[in-house]
Amino acid sequence: MEEMNIEAFKGLLAEKNYKVLRQKLLETEPDNIADLLDSIPDDTALTVFRLLPKTLAVDVFDYMDGSLQNRLLECFSDQAARNFLEAMPPDDRIELLEEVPANVARRLLQILSPEQKRLTVHLLGYKEGTAGREMTPYFVDLHSYLTVAQAMERIRRLAINRETIYVCYVMDRARHLIGTVSLRDLVVADPEARVSDIMTPNPVFVFTNTDREEVAKTLLDRDLIAVPVVDAEERLVGIITHDDVADIVEEETTEDIYRFGAVAGTERSYFTSRILDVVKSRAAWLFLLILVNMLTGSIIAGQEALLGEMVILAAFIPLLIGTGGNVGAQSATVVIRGLATGEVNPKKAMAVVGRESLVGIVLGLTLGVAVLILAYLLGRDLMVAAVVTFTLVVISVIATIVGGALPFVFRLVKLDPALVSAPFISTVMDISGVFLYFVVANIMLSL
Amino acid sequence: MEEMNIEAFKGLLAEKNYKVLRQKLLETEPDNIADLLDSIPDDTALTVFRLLPKTLAVDVFDYMDGSLQNRLLECFSDQAARNFLEAMPPDDRIELLEEVPANVARRLLQILSPEQKRLTVHLLGYKEGTAGREMTPYFVDLHSYLTVAQAMERIRRLAINRETIYVCYVMDRARHLIGTVSLRDLVVADPEARVSDIMTPNPVFVFTNTDREEVAKTLLDRDLIAVPVVDAEERLVGIITHDDVADIVEEETTEDIYRFGAVAGTERSYFTSRILDVVKSRAAWLFLLILVNMLTGSIIAGQEALLGEMVILAAFIPLLIGTGGNVGAQSATVVIRGLATGEVNPKKAMAVVGRESLVGIVLGLTLGVAVLILAYLLGRDLMVAAVVTFTLVVISVIATIVGGALPFVFRLVKLDPALVSAPFISTVMDISGVFLYFVVANIMLSL
Repeated sequence: MEEMNIEAFKGLLAEKNYKVLRQKLLETEPDNIADLLDSIPDDTALTVFRLLPKTLAVDVFDYMDGSLQNRLLECFSDQAARNFLEAMPPDDRIELLEEVPANVARRLLQILSPEQKRLTVHLLGYKEGTAGREMTPYFVDLHSYLTVAQAMERIRRLAINRETIYVCYVMDRARHLIGTVSLRDLVVADPEARVSDIMTPNPVFVFTNTDREEVAKTLLDRDLIAVPVVDAEERLVGIITHDDVADIVEEETTEDIYRFGAVAGTERSYFTSRILDVVKSRAAWLFLLILVNMLTGSIIAGQEALLGEMVILAAFIPLLIGTGGNVGAQSATVVIRGLATGEVNPKKAMAVVGRESLVGIVLGLTLGVAVLILAYLLGRDLMVAAVVTFTLVVISVIATIVGGALPFVFRLVKLDPALVSAPFISTVMDISGVFLYFVVANIMLSL
Repeated sequence: MEEMNIEAFKGLLAEKNYKVLRQKLLETEPDNIADLLDSIPDDTALTVFRLLPKTLAVDVFDYMDGSLQNRLLECFSDQAARNFLEAMPPDDRIELLEEVPANVARRLLQILSPEQKRLTVHLLGYKEGTAGREMTPYFVDLHSYLTVAQAMERIRRLAINRETIYVCYVMDRARHLIGTVSLRDLVVADPEARVSDIMTPNPVFVFTNTDREEVAKTLLDRDLIAVPVVDAEERLVGIITHDDVADIVEEETTEDIYRFGAVAGTERSYFTSRILDVVKSRAAWLFLLILVNMLTGSIIAGQEALLGEMVILAAFIPLLIGTGGNVGAQSATVVIRGLATGEVNPKKAMAVVGRESLVGIVLGLTLGVAVLILAYLLGRDLMVAAVVTFTLVVISVIATIVGGALPFVFRLVKLDPALVSAPFISTVMDISGVFLYFVVANIMLSL
């Protein structure tokens, strides 16, 4: 595959040399084509898009920016839009319908053929984020009494429009899933053998309402090519393939990372979301954190007498609360990621918090030595330096406990542990750190 | 598949009823078996482990804790260890050799058969984190002049020990990769057709020294089952399959998340790493951040005169630097993740920073209204409230610029953008926030 550069592309367009252009496009990667289309006016882009064969067009479309997708869809005639939509795999079509504005989605749904419309509406009926919404109904089903040769014949016939033929699903007469058989097994088996003899019984499956994160874990833990999805009566209704799982993992990870950074929503398309939406997705958390920080401020304001006498105490506030936030963020990072990958689980909560607090003590003592010296150099007051150091050690321990325990507490009350963001932890440590600091200062300095 | 509960398991063990135990284990998921083995003494675990057929044993081993793996390997006789190691796929073997202590790795390498030892040492010769280290040499290679029937015959023969047979690689006489052909294409093709007629020419490939993150992107972008790996002369030497890519993505993401939380290294196994190693992986960044916070402290100490007069100014320090850190962390989160997924790239740096600073202005003004009121309520001084609010708006803008631009700057100087951690940003905002605050306070309050 070659890259087409934009000058060559625009040259051919200017000459209206569509024949050569089409030929060149056939040799170009879909993502490259999407970039090229993004660089020219919409009506020209539509002309070029129409040159592409249907399957390539679907691939290219998948790589486009959301806004370019919308604009192209609006230019389509109903017939063109219908042909195009029906060429897409049903799960990709659902995703498209979710992402376009509601009026466009309605129009697209109307123009589908009755059969495709029924299928699409059926899939749209599942809750977002569940297996039902992600699955494709295009899998290969086999009966257990077929011979291997008959099964191969069936696979050959169905191959053209199935998402995968590398795993086939064996069902009984009531469409209950009773086993799986891989194309690998079929290829090496005796053609006269029965599917029932070579299939793997008791296959792993998920339900239509299983959370898609759970689906991803199931597929990845067992290195599957696809996970079968069954309805409440355990009848097979669809499959989710490894490449769809890769997309799920990427989206879920982005969501976790955003939450840890206290950004709400996923802002799926960075450049196309409106500034005000972006502000909204960030302002809520910030505002909450500002309220807490006002409390922190009122604790400090309450210490006017002490601070008026010893202004130097104020100089160590950023150091103490900053270290508390940083230490807490480290613990939370490790625990949240562990919960996401499955290395850590709620049963191990006590062990994790115990371990983290031990880390906190050792960290606090290590950093304390440095801080004792630095604080003395800055304040030239041994008692103040002692107050700062002692507070730092205690803050380290509290921070590791807070950072280590909060993700578990969130899970316990059914919130996503990833909501324990770095800003959240640092704000909790701001208020507890300042409170602790002045308690320690008042006690030690009045000795 | 059923879950075996630990009581049933221990019961069978106590009765020494190995026959039933083996039968039950064959019906149990490998991860479940690994958990069971972890709950009993090492010598008993070894006895049970020996009951497992070789391929299941390899799977179970893969699910074990690092420390249990080591302990079991130490109990193995040379012959047992050799049989076991040679049953592992070469890429998993490499991973094992990397993770066990050096003396164990040396022993294991010595006991391999000469052929397997050569292969292993060969793979170990590639730099960690490159395609060469992750690839497996067990793929299906085909000559282009074979008929489809001959190709299928060859696949049948090789199937048993190839990582995948779903994509086959077509090579010329000099072992250059000239095309790929999927088992799907072979199954539907006329048995008399030539491989050269149905193969997809110009396949995507990576080099042995390609970074593994790049490999993952290549596979995921094109929804491949496996990526072929070629040497400097473009001869095919291995493949990397989709399940290995899933592991790569998980490890790389963990690394990115850890870095954003200012945790060095990946602490691959949370419960088995030593407390001191954990402290080491976290203390370095904390210490650096403490040094910066000492500078922040000295700025405050330098304002003794002003603060002595107006202690209330100290009360707003946590609010201002906290908000700066939080706003900056949000921007950095979005940009770092965008760089990791490819949505944002260095060419768009100016657009991103421009967008972020716009977000910063709007965020600052929005939050500013709330802060003006709250600050007045806390300090009962309109001028101080004005100073705080004005500083907050400016800090918001600076924070979005710092958070948005630093990941690009890091990439520019060839550092990983994920090193721009939340603690790093918040510390930068501590010092710049405090500095700004007192500049503004000195100017506005002396009016």
